[in-house]
Amino acid sequence: MRINKQWRLAARPQQLFKDTDFKWIEEPVPALADGQVLVRNVYLSLDPTNRVWASQDSYMPMVPLGEVMRGGTIGVVEESRDAGFAPADIVQGLLGWQLYASAPGAQLTKLPKGVPLTAFMGLLGHIGLTAYFGLIDIGQPKEGETLVVSAAAGAVGSLVGQIGKIKGCYVVGIAGSDEKCRWLKDELGYDAAINYRKEKILDALKRECPRGIDIYFDNVGGEILDAALALLNLRARIPLCGMISQYTATGPVAGPSNLARLIMTRSRIEGFLVTDYLPRAGEAIPQLLGWMQSGKLKFKVDVAEGLESAPRAINKLFEGTNTGKLVVKISEEP
Amino acid sequence: MRINKQWRLAARPQQLFKDTDFKWIEEPVPALADGQVLVRNVYLSLDPTNRVWASQDSYMPMVPLGEVMRGGTIGVVEESRDAGFAPADIVQGLLGWQLYASAPGAQLTKLPKGVPLTAFMGLLGHIGLTAYFGLIDIGQPKEGETLVVSAAAGAVGSLVGQIGKIKGCYVVGIAGSDEKCRWLKDELGYDAAINYRKEKILDALKRECPRGIDIYFDNVGGEILDAALALLNLRARIPLCGMISQYTATGPVAGPSNLARLIMTRSRIEGFLVTDYLPRAGEAIPQLLGWMQSGKLKFKVDVAEGLESAPRAINKLFEGTNTGKLVVKISEEP
Repeated sequence: MRINKQWRLAARPQQLFKDTDFKWIEEPVPALADGQVLVRNVYLSLDPTNRVWASQDSYMPMVPLGEVMRGGTIGVVEESRDAGFAPADIVQGLLGWQLYASAPGAQLTKLPKGVPLTAFMGLLGHIGLTAYFGLIDIGQPKEGETLVVSAAAGAVGSLVGQIGKIKGCYVVGIAGSDEKCRWLKDELGYDAAINYRKEKILDALKRECPRGIDIYFDNVGGEILDAALALLNLRARIPLCGMISQYTATGPVAGPSNLARLIMTRSRIEGFLVTDYLPRAGEAIPQLLGWMQSGKLKFKVDVAEGLESAPRAINKLFEGTNTGKLVVKISEEP
Repeated sequence: MRINKQWRLAARPQQLFKDTDFKWIEEPVPALADGQVLVRNVYLSLDPTNRVWASQDSYMPMVPLGEVMRGGTIGVVEESRDAGFAPADIVQGLLGWQLYASAPGAQLTKLPKGVPLTAFMGLLGHIGLTAYFGLIDIGQPKEGETLVVSAAAGAVGSLVGQIGKIKGCYVVGIAGSDEKCRWLKDELGYDAAINYRKEKILDALKRECPRGIDIYFDNVGGEILDAALALLNLRARIPLCGMISQYTATGPVAGPSNLARLIMTRSRIEGFLVTDYLPRAGEAIPQLLGWMQSGKLKFKVDVAEGLESAPRAINKLFEGTNTGKLVVKISEEP
């Protein structure tokens, strides 16, 4: 008999997640119902948006208290009562913070073999699509333009900068440690990198963006957005991908004080969600895969070991201590 | 011999304009040079952007101290040494806060007769083009959508709402007095109007926009923008036309605290300047004129008498006490 392990949401988080926001449950896995597929989760994706899911209704309803915490996973089929799936199939779905999950086949996507599984959590998954469509569709990069990326060593940011380089931009990354900055420049080919913890961001951006900013890909909001606004060129674009600086705030946060720059420069800020682009994934995935296979697009995974570690590991996103895509390894790859 | 009267800029304004920010000059008009046209100004346009011109470089360089204050005027040609202009021609130009101005003909636009002169300062001038292109191009109104307009009884705002009605929108105006609100509803056909001085703007918007906000045409920035963000529908548009609440601020102003709503709703804020649309004026003017002549588009002018009144009259814009387009009558219409 299989014993499931789960993290259920026990309280609405305030600021960072606390251990007491989750409850650890171990219980037998019930017999599989007709039409269902039993999946053993191997990797759990940890993303900034999880913090939103835990505390408020947004583009998805918030996770009800007492339910398994929502999360994207990749796993292996152990048992199937859906004709479309067989044991040993590798599948992806929103199967939650748990070792075993049952779901109807319609909620699962079968993954091809021969590509590292974690790539589907990043470059070839929602992360890659976010970076691709946010930059290409909303950012509209043109050769020779200056692209600034915040949270540049994060899962999305690290891809955005590399795609920007492929499109011929001058790319400046903003990250929170010298080590991350070195990685951006030495490994990912960023033209410049700024450690925002070490100097005034406006001064640093002025120095590193001598021709101003054409695209600011914003993952964080707050003070960095304010500084970027000050340096916008004419008809600049700000794809608004995330506001990680605000997800753990307890009250209203200060917004940018110089939105009037948008008028003077005829620029735009535009929010987007990757969910809207899923029907167009077929445009992006072959390119992302090709760039990965030719070495133009590198991708780092930050792996936390064991489902038990999830409640603490997720705070790395808000503390800025992860590099690349943060995942939890729940069980062994098949 | 003609005696000119001028307001020259004497100091950079802090907050509202003060009398001491200007210096009154009376001096003889010099003999007209070859290629120049001598214009007697009849109307001077007072606009929020004048405050920007007086204090900072922006889309135009700031007015140098000691120079005649920059301003748009309509006047009558008194003398011409440019073959394209003759006495009694009616012209428009950026001729400044003065009774007489000389300019090369290339800097003047000849106006047709038979339309009230002040219409060229509003509906058929930069104000009308601002309202038209800001709403149509950036706002992209669709039938049945909810359009909210701030500074709705102002020159631009009063046109935006009426054009919104022509395009089939449900139009909600925000203004600063009950009298203005009555004018918006009873005369201009707005569906609803909110006096922002009398109640909490977020509560009022919730009540008056039961189907949320699809377009927020922003003339003011600040707290009203924050409230509008909270009520955005999916794929909403915020044309950013002005930030009048901020032009007289002495330090950084608080920005909207909930820009993250742009992500959740996949919406955009986009700044624009009418100057970019001048080459496309021919698309807008015939429609604006037609709507005016058929009574669909009404237009109010708030006239201050005498050039002497300009330094005080302009503060009405920032105190919110004008209704419709604010102009100064400098001399008699021909």
